[in-house]
Amino acid sequence: MNEGDFRLLINKKMKVLIVGLGLMGGSYAKALKRLGFTVNAISRRQETINYAIDNGIIDAGSISPDPRIIASADLVIMGLYPKVFVQWIKDNQQYFKPGVIITDVTGVKGSVVYEVQSILRSDAEFIAAHPMAGREVYGVENSDEKMFFGANYIVVPTAKNTHGAIELCKDLGAMLGFARISVLSPEEHDDIIGFVSQLTHCIAVSLMTCCDNKRLVDYTGDSFRDLTRIARINDAMWSELFNMNKEPLLRQMDAFMEEFGAFRKMLAEGDTEGMRQKMRLSTERRAWFDKK
Amino acid sequence: MNEGDFRLLINKKMKVLIVGLGLMGGSYAKALKRLGFTVNAISRRQETINYAIDNGIIDAGSISPDPRIIASADLVIMGLYPKVFVQWIKDNQQYFKPGVIITDVTGVKGSVVYEVQSILRSDAEFIAAHPMAGREVYGVENSDEKMFFGANYIVVPTAKNTHGAIELCKDLGAMLGFARISVLSPEEHDDIIGFVSQLTHCIAVSLMTCCDNKRLVDYTGDSFRDLTRIARINDAMWSELFNMNKEPLLRQMDAFMEEFGAFRKMLAEGDTEGMRQKMRLSTERRAWFDKK
Repeated sequence: MNEGDFRLLINKKMKVLIVGLGLMGGSYAKALKRLGFTVNAISRRQETINYAIDNGIIDAGSISPDPRIIASADLVIMGLYPKVFVQWIKDNQQYFKPGVIITDVTGVKGSVVYEVQSILRSDAEFIAAHPMAGREVYGVENSDEKMFFGANYIVVPTAKNTHGAIELCKDLGAMLGFARISVLSPEEHDDIIGFVSQLTHCIAVSLMTCCDNKRLVDYTGDSFRDLTRIARINDAMWSELFNMNKEPLLRQMDAFMEEFGAFRKMLAEGDTEGMRQKMRLSTERRAWFDKK
Repeated sequence: MNEGDFRLLINKKMKVLIVGLGLMGGSYAKALKRLGFTVNAISRRQETINYAIDNGIIDAGSISPDPRIIASADLVIMGLYPKVFVQWIKDNQQYFKPGVIITDVTGVKGSVVYEVQSILRSDAEFIAAHPMAGREVYGVENSDEKMFFGANYIVVPTAKNTHGAIELCKDLGAMLGFARISVLSPEEHDDIIGFVSQLTHCIAVSLMTCCDNKRLVDYTGDSFRDLTRIARINDAMWSELFNMNKEPLLRQMDAFMEEFGAFRKMLAEGDTEGMRQKMRLSTERRAWFDKK
């Protein structure tokens, strides 16, 4: 078999189904419609479907798991929260077209990917992905494919995935506009996401809740605004993500507390050179982020 | 005495001296020149003075504490780091014009204001101020008065200050373009700045130093970028600021660690409703910042 045989190139003849047309699902839909795909959707609220059809975001949609719509899809993008997502697969996979590829946008992987792959029909394939983009607003009305440009996209395969599905998922990320496509195992993904995404949200929330001075807004510079932007948080979604990634997140919280505690000790003990070394290291490391 | 007598209105005939023509001093100079003031400067490096004169940022300048330049000033703006600042006053206050008003841009107050006021000539007045604006770049070459627009400015008087000087300092902040002018005591200022500014820098540095994965940049979304923007830090300046505000900062670090530890406990113990309450509180509080 040569390289060409591996590759299931995405083409515009593929019909796409988006399940859960929120901020992320809606942004996928907009990008894929622009690229010329047929895009259908299943979402809970009739207003969402109507809005999306009226605004040319999807071709057709339903609030129920319409077997005809599901069976027409070559590529399914799951835009649901993790727990509902697994349940939806259990309830509706009998309608899938043989050979369907399913991907997702979920922010936790270990507690989702193995379960979905273990229950999935053998003639369907689930290849997990995490588009590292988001906003503090919700719903298809706020969806915006521009948030993908310049952002990171992580493909999260397991031993069960085919080379073809992995390549297709990478191609999808590139077509959506993501700048950097990486491949990580579910365990690597959860560890890193526990650090860069979940730990930062825990910090932002704690920073915002530990002081009840209502006039803070009059005294602050950009620093506090930056560190608390993500303190506006969807409590249903993020508590679910935290619970589903509990052990890696607890490890990252502990590592941060240890580092922060060490810095506190330097300050308390007058170890100015120790503080300055940490500051120089942080300055050097932060510069990596500006080079790209 | 009526209200009018209290008010030392700033007028364009006042000559301004900026001591320390860095990012902040340079930005003051640009704004005050635009407003029509005569602006002179004393700064350490000849290149700085040459650049500022060549670019119309100041009228005249010197690298030494030229008595003639100092004696011509009605308003002195100290743009130096705190320790050098106090020493400069000690060394050069004999040249001040009687009745001079001195203000500053220093980020700590309790450990500076009382000392300066106690050593200052009785015919001069120091009224402290903290312009809550900044950048991660340095030097007069990067100065930019636009950073003042929409930002906060805090006037920090003591019992020794006159009503007139306080009003003048507030007027100065408004003329520079600051959106919100507040008045706080040195103790209130240091406590709040320990929280909104210094604690956030400690968090950003610790977040950046606690993980040495060089590929983080490929896996991150905007959250981590936001929380670490200020991890690019001037280690000389910030370690001095931390040391000079040690007790308030340690208190704020402890309060944050306690709150963060409580959140960790909720996650560890499966107290989802507790986490969600914290998230809803942080969301509600963060919304204050978007209203203004």
